[in-house]
Amino acid sequence: MDEDLDALSDLARRFFEKECAPNEDRWARQHHVDREIWNRAGELGLLCLSIPEEYGGGGGTFAHEAVVLTEQVRGMSPSLGNPVHSGIVAHYVHAYGTEEQKRHWLPKMASGEVVGAIAMTEPGTGSDLQGIKTKAVKDGDDYVLNGAKTFITNGYLADLVIVACKTGEGKGADAVSLILVETTRDGFRRGRNLEKIGQHGQDTCELFFDNVRVPQTNLLGAAEGIGFIQLMQQLPQERLILGVIAAAAIEKTVEVTLTYTKEREAFGKPIFAFQNTQFTLAECDTIKTIAWSFTDDCVARHLRGELDVPTAAKAKWWLTEQQCKVADECLQLFGGYGYMAEYPISKFYADARIQKIYGGTNEIMKLIISRTL
Amino acid sequence: MDEDLDALSDLARRFFEKECAPNEDRWARQHHVDREIWNRAGELGLLCLSIPEEYGGGGGTFAHEAVVLTEQVRGMSPSLGNPVHSGIVAHYVHAYGTEEQKRHWLPKMASGEVVGAIAMTEPGTGSDLQGIKTKAVKDGDDYVLNGAKTFITNGYLADLVIVACKTGEGKGADAVSLILVETTRDGFRRGRNLEKIGQHGQDTCELFFDNVRVPQTNLLGAAEGIGFIQLMQQLPQERLILGVIAAAAIEKTVEVTLTYTKEREAFGKPIFAFQNTQFTLAECDTIKTIAWSFTDDCVARHLRGELDVPTAAKAKWWLTEQQCKVADECLQLFGGYGYMAEYPISKFYADARIQKIYGGTNEIMKLIISRTL
Amino acid sequence: MDEDLDALSDLARRFFEKECAPNEDRWARQHHVDREIWNRAGELGLLCLSIPEEYGGGGGTFAHEAVVLTEQVRGMSPSLGNPVHSGIVAHYVHAYGTEEQKRHWLPKMASGEVVGAIAMTEPGTGSDLQGIKTKAVKDGDDYVLNGAKTFITNGYLADLVIVACKTGEGKGADAVSLILVETTRDGFRRGRNLEKIGQHGQDTCELFFDNVRVPQTNLLGAAEGIGFIQLMQQLPQERLILGVIAAAAIEKTVEVTLTYTKEREAFGKPIFAFQNTQFTLAECDTIKTIAWSFTDDCVARHLRGELDVPTAAKAKWWLTEQQCKVADECLQLFGGYGYMAEYPISKFYADARIQKIYGGTNEIMKLIISRTL
Amino acid sequence: MDEDLDALSDLARRFFEKECAPNEDRWARQHHVDREIWNRAGELGLLCLSIPEEYGGGGGTFAHEAVVLTEQVRGMSPSLGNPVHSGIVAHYVHAYGTEEQKRHWLPKMASGEVVGAIAMTEPGTGSDLQGIKTKAVKDGDDYVLNGAKTFITNGYLADLVIVACKTGEGKGADAVSLILVETTRDGFRRGRNLEKIGQHGQDTCELFFDNVRVPQTNLLGAAEGIGFIQLMQQLPQERLILGVIAAAAIEKTVEVTLTYTKEREAFGKPIFAFQNTQFTLAECDTIKTIAWSFTDDCVARHLRGELDVPTAAKAKWWLTEQQCKVADECLQLFGGYGYMAEYPISKFYADARIQKIYGGTNEIMKLIISRTL
Repeated sequence: MDEDLDALSDLARRFFEKECAPNEDRWARQHHVDREIWNRAGELGLLCLSIPEEYGGGGGTFAHEAVVLTEQVRGMSPSLGNPVHSGIVAHYVHAYGTEEQKRHWLPKMASGEVVGAIAMTEPGTGSDLQGIKTKAVKDGDDYVLNGAKTFITNGYLADLVIVACKTGEGKGADAVSLILVETTRDGFRRGRNLEKIGQHGQDTCELFFDNVRVPQTNLLGAAEGIGFIQLMQQLPQERLILGVIAAAAIEKTVEVTLTYTKEREAFGKPIFAFQNTQFTLAECDTIKTIAWSFTDDCVARHLRGELDVPTAAKAKWWLTEQQCKVADECLQLFGGYGYMAEYPISKFYADARIQKIYGGTNEIMKLIISRTL
Repeated sequence: MDEDLDALSDLARRFFEKECAPNEDRWARQHHVDREIWNRAGELGLLCLSIPEEYGGGGGTFAHEAVVLTEQVRGMSPSLGNPVHSGIVAHYVHAYGTEEQKRHWLPKMASGEVVGAIAMTEPGTGSDLQGIKTKAVKDGDDYVLNGAKTFITNGYLADLVIVACKTGEGKGADAVSLILVETTRDGFRRGRNLEKIGQHGQDTCELFFDNVRVPQTNLLGAAEGIGFIQLMQQLPQERLILGVIAAAAIEKTVEVTLTYTKEREAFGKPIFAFQNTQFTLAECDTIKTIAWSFTDDCVARHLRGELDVPTAAKAKWWLTEQQCKVADECLQLFGGYGYMAEYPISKFYADARIQKIYGGTNEIMKLIISRTL
Repeated sequence: MDEDLDALSDLARRFFEKECAPNEDRWARQHHVDREIWNRAGELGLLCLSIPEEYGGGGGTFAHEAVVLTEQVRGMSPSLGNPVHSGIVAHYVHAYGTEEQKRHWLPKMASGEVVGAIAMTEPGTGSDLQGIKTKAVKDGDDYVLNGAKTFITNGYLADLVIVACKTGEGKGADAVSLILVETTRDGFRRGRNLEKIGQHGQDTCELFFDNVRVPQTNLLGAAEGIGFIQLMQQLPQERLILGVIAAAAIEKTVEVTLTYTKEREAFGKPIFAFQNTQFTLAECDTIKTIAWSFTDDCVARHLRGELDVPTAAKAKWWLTEQQCKVADECLQLFGGYGYMAEYPISKFYADARIQKIYGGTNEIMKLIISRTL
Repeated sequence: MDEDLDALSDLARRFFEKECAPNEDRWARQHHVDREIWNRAGELGLLCLSIPEEYGGGGGTFAHEAVVLTEQVRGMSPSLGNPVHSGIVAHYVHAYGTEEQKRHWLPKMASGEVVGAIAMTEPGTGSDLQGIKTKAVKDGDDYVLNGAKTFITNGYLADLVIVACKTGEGKGADAVSLILVETTRDGFRRGRNLEKIGQHGQDTCELFFDNVRVPQTNLLGAAEGIGFIQLMQQLPQERLILGVIAAAAIEKTVEVTLTYTKEREAFGKPIFAFQNTQFTLAECDTIKTIAWSFTDDCVARHLRGELDVPTAAKAKWWLTEQQCKVADECLQLFGGYGYMAEYPISKFYADARIQKIYGGTNEIMKLIISRTL
């Protein structure tokens, strides 16, 4: 399998370096990737790698996803929302979909014909999913959806959105269901593509649902009211994805900073010759080593089906906190250049900040961990 | 004098809140303020407050500048480059200019007819001013300047630039002179207005000097070769300016975060009701109190002429580090909203990061302090 | 007044350096100072400096206490429990005592004939004073006290103990009273003089009250049940005392570390010549400057009667946290010597740790601050 | 092998819990363990576990040593200097000794008949081994040693000391040799058993060598002048030992703190019910998980012969820094009890501090890492 992963690594690296990275500045200005890059990624077999071949996927494991996540970071081309598309949305469909849903959607997601998104957060709810207000009401054979979502990754280009909504009368978690909504449905509307601190090439949208009518067969899962449980089951993988991205970002951040501080001179010698630089980078390089050691351990546990909720939460908060810390320390070594958008280090810094927030804020992670102590 | 400062405070607050803040989004998109806002600030008497009245200034002290700096931060309108214009450039002219230079430039700077900038950093030199390569060669009664500068605040709109350059044959600090360059001179060219992580409404430019010819009477100071000493003398005030901005930013950051966490609910209660929020804000509010206590102490020392170089360096690094830390902690309490450009907290975060770098990096500050131990 | 304070400074310094410091090792082994040093301190006029002269005190202000606190730290002789005796106990007697109580006790406390302690904490209650279990029941003209106290500074040598106890039937704060207990009373017993991480020369005792009978005139205050209010009123001064000690400790820690790192060589040059040492000490020296700036500000507020509860809480937690941080950073620069008890730095480190805990833990401080936000 | 390790784990746990821990207070007062506990440990087969059976050792691997290190920490009985004796000294003898030396010393070290120490540090040299001044001069068939060593673990009870000294005329690293010195030799003298911040039951001595005469066959290694290389080769294992101890200490610190905060109440509920406690312990528990994950990874690398110098340095500094941080955070949750010597948390805190210093200070670790970047 290692050879398999190495080959995938090469393929992914070339794709992100040659076909994505050169477009990143343009994507940043338009605030989304080009639609056709999704098809290109599908064509190369880089989407849905851990979905079985019978549904058009790569037939691989999370190890394959991890390779692609890593190479995307190394290729300094963070905008393609594949972590959400392949790592999250496809897995919801695969885990909870009917045979028909799987046969319909997964091959199209693997080819890039369909871009996936998942809509949980609403204006006014953050990490608190019980407070969801979007509602799906039965009407004949259909559901009629009303509500608003925000901060939706891939929202601008998505063809398929998994919408977390209330189906029953209940107020709590047991009234939440997941429903598949095609973005061609009447009443579906994309709001603003939001301006952010960083991740400028990644679309992050508001979505509105005004009497959107979908057949009840679009319900994802065996019954209504199990959405919260479905979300809980998928969270460890989602959080591990963020952890892998963080580990890879730490590695790349240290790498570009080492290169810079060895080339660039101040006061007559390379910046790296100053002890402060050496200690800072020794610390960051240590974090890199430990981040990968722990991440690899978590990936191995996940492959064995043993990645539990608190361990995934630990990976999520600790790795993303380290990512932000390393980005900040390294940026400082660039001096004024570090603040300029054209330097990759500035992107590592600005892109990193959301990692401590999405996928459940790091505070929520600590709550989750503390409940198991 | 307190009444005087209170009145100034009101005036400045109204100006920044009513006349600047509503334009900030537009200024951010165009990457500079409107030219006429400078004239408006001059008209209101908000420029060059600590320059004597005989030169058209406000006849005040650094306390007056501090009031305007503070109200600009509180007004959430950071883009007008008055800290550099009034706090730095005008003071160079006033401290080292000939009577003629002062009579010519200062009234225009006070009215906003002339916008000032100071050009020290070059591509390839950061905090190391001895490595400056821009050169001024005597030719007849003129200097002919060649070189390039970067990261120049107010660079896009500046009418007058104080250029740090080499005049003699020497390689070290004793060959550095300051020369006044009008931006109407042939051979002067503005390069790119640089994209940054934050401070999007503030112009930060590359400047190029290709055989720019200015009369030798444009030399700023009694003799060539004293530029480095001139820079050293002005640095404590420059660093204190950054410290005042940091203290005000900490205050405002805590204020907007308190408001948000008390209004916004999660899991059925205001975010402020969680102990983690309370402790975080108690810590940030403590930093606010100490930041102002120390800043006020430094301002008082400066007014007495007793702010020494290491104390100013301490104020610069510590206050700006706290500013970044508080911005980061507070942003986290906003969850996903904190990462969205439309929320002021995201601007406080993105704008803050350069503070640890410019005015001499915080590492340079520590070097300076350690030399006096 | 400055001359007055300077003279006091000299007197206190000589006392701590010449008469106390040489005994510290012996005091550490016996876990308390010699009883007679209290009388000597009284003879020199170093006790009860901020108690009016009519009650035998020094007739000074908190500024005088602050001078003695500072010189005690500088003299590296931390064991004499004067901060509690003069700074806290005498002020309770002065603020709440009857004229008779004041005339009886304060002159003796000023001369050192009587050593004072205050007993709040009980086994099982820490910062939570409402949970106090020690009870005083009226019997004829007396109170009969029963209960146990722990962590009582000066407990081993104390002649007079202010005991916080429940007098009424209530369960909450409104049942707490303060009662003066002479340690000669039957049923009073000192428990163990506790072994601690540091502060080995300072007695910290358990105290037991088994049917201790005192006259009801020993009640401190105009009525029963106001003990909690009395404690609240005195807390800002108590916390400021800890802050002053912290600021002085930071100063002295930096001083001894500077001396050491300049003398001691490694790899062929003084340890101070390494940039890591320089940066660490520049940071610690900055903290020293800010700690004094803020402490002086708080002392000035307190002298004006304006030191409010949240500001005192800020001073307490922030200054003591900095003290511990600076002690840790500086100890590291001593290498193996830093861990050896004979080096003063090891005492600064071990003594510092309790500062974040007593006087209300730093977490309680943050709670207090957050309530005022 | 796992069963083997489990059985060892049980054996070691019982030994440390039943036969060592109850004596720790007494050992702390006498500043060394009882001599006979060494023989008892030998009898149980707990010494020299990773030395081949043919030399009387356990025939195990570093995994066996790691188990004993871990159980010693868990058993809260840190005083027996087995990490130095078995983990370091025995391995020097085994790696560099002649067949005769190995046959003579290793069985006695395994049985506890001989206690080993290694003497590197001198008064005036810390982490800088090139500055060693102890000298061995050839005289007939002997070496005559003169010099002084300090901070020598096991120094008070040692029967055999490996002494790092200068043998040649050179000044640098290539003049350093290791020589075996029996403590029965004339001229050998133990100095003070040093008072420290913590680790009170562990003997840490000064050693003096005044014309100590040993046969030249006591040279450890094939030739003079290779002592520095020998030290370098053993360092990764030594540093990993400190890392394992740190990981185990973090685990145990979190465990005792969880127990305490769940039992102990404040303000009417368990301390653990406060969010600040929950977050602090969630963070510490995360560090525990990552510390073990990384430590296990390093142990696995070491068992494969692949633990390189920078990775061992990373493990040493990062794990010991985390150990100190966790000890500090957890102690705080105990309030005043945390500062009392009778509470285990106070020992974890006081014992931890030296870990950042010995085995090469954490600053030296960063230097080592930076050289490989």
